[in-house]
Amino acid sequence: MQLTDSLKAVVFDVFGTCVDWRSGVAREVALAAARLRVAVDALDFADAWRGRYQPAMEEVRSGRRPWTILDVLHRESLDALLPKFGLGALDEAARDDLNRAWHRLDPWPDAVGGLARLKRRYVIGPMSNGNVALLVNMAKRAGIPWDVILGAETSRAYKPLPESYVRCCAMLGLAPGEVMLAAAHEDDLRAAAAAGLRTGFVARPLEFGAGRRTDDGSRGRWDVVATDFGELADRLGA
Amino acid sequence: MQLTDSLKAVVFDVFGTCVDWRSGVAREVALAAARLRVAVDALDFADAWRGRYQPAMEEVRSGRRPWTILDVLHRESLDALLPKFGLGALDEAARDDLNRAWHRLDPWPDAVGGLARLKRRYVIGPMSNGNVALLVNMAKRAGIPWDVILGAETSRAYKPLPESYVRCCAMLGLAPGEVMLAAAHEDDLRAAAAAGLRTGFVARPLEFGAGRRTDDGSRGRWDVVATDFGELADRLGA
Repeated sequence: MQLTDSLKAVVFDVFGTCVDWRSGVAREVALAAARLRVAVDALDFADAWRGRYQPAMEEVRSGRRPWTILDVLHRESLDALLPKFGLGALDEAARDDLNRAWHRLDPWPDAVGGLARLKRRYVIGPMSNGNVALLVNMAKRAGIPWDVILGAETSRAYKPLPESYVRCCAMLGLAPGEVMLAAAHEDDLRAAAAAGLRTGFVARPLEFGAGRRTDDGSRGRWDVVATDFGELADRLGA
Repeated sequence: MQLTDSLKAVVFDVFGTCVDWRSGVAREVALAAARLRVAVDALDFADAWRGRYQPAMEEVRSGRRPWTILDVLHRESLDALLPKFGLGALDEAARDDLNRAWHRLDPWPDAVGGLARLKRRYVIGPMSNGNVALLVNMAKRAGIPWDVILGAETSRAYKPLPESYVRCCAMLGLAPGEVMLAAAHEDDLRAAAAAGLRTGFVARPLEFGAGRRTDDGSRGRWDVVATDFGELADRLGA
């Protein structure tokens, strides 16, 4: 049987796979710094903020901390970083607004078109560590045509914990083998495959900036390896 | 301040408000009965199936039964009803298929057009006792352009429990006063209002069939009272 005969849904990692978090966050950090008349390397700030992402989620995954959505973890990381970058004077309203930079990230140029094609044949949705409000606001702004919003908040478990994948499939009423995770990160795909999902690697060579190393799809046997969402749609017959 | 200045999302009761459950279920019951060559009053069957809806959910709401999604409750009710209507010979595959009649209900004629208008200005989603898979499959088939799928399964509480409404608003990152529930049922609106949501009554005089009594919007002070989703969109400036 062909993969496409049994596949019913394609779900997506979001940060890095669907949207360019680094440029988007840096753009808003630069604006906030300019208002304070402080010189900041905004890309360095974006990298430092993202650098706190896995450690913050690990507190929740480990059970040391009760379930906490990503907006709250992002805000705590932001509050910790601002003084280190000379931005400690940012007021509450500006901090809240800057934290929502993660709700306003731009999709990679091929993403919305590829998703619109995939949507004609499959149920599509995020399977992201972002919380529901973040993902809904992002999709509204960018025109991402999700059928459903799934992820850590609906599963109450952060990737790569197996429950995060399994509970998303269960909510769709599908067996894991009827669902593909598409992601630019091979550790995410490896955990999804271990939970029984099909896997699609999509290369995002610019995720961390030009010349920085990214996964290339060679570290596992993925069902599909594609250069962008258009090729993913081609390979999935959409 | 005008209602529309503070409103960010409009969420919808689904069975009866967005879709015509009675005709849709009866259509599929009639087909299943015809295959067995059994004469059945399919509308009576639909009414009897729906009649078991509140008692089944009440077992869960009361805590006498752990969290159980609506697809499972519907299936139990179906299995109990089939022999009473002479349809006990229906096999497992046919029962599973008939249970999914609830995933294949048709929207009222004004629903999709009104929702497409509301989507331009507001986040729109179901706030339904239907489970996520049911709501996603229904929307895919009918072209309902939801931004997000919310309801009892994402809240793990059946309406009209207050948590069902409050947790949906929290997932959207919104205060209850920034969210309107639109429904054809005044008890649903009353519970939503008690939880702090705004309310929109939409009349669905044919929900239970011609000549059967339905709510008319007169039993409470709702923020908006409309005859269909087009008028709701008008009133909400969408």
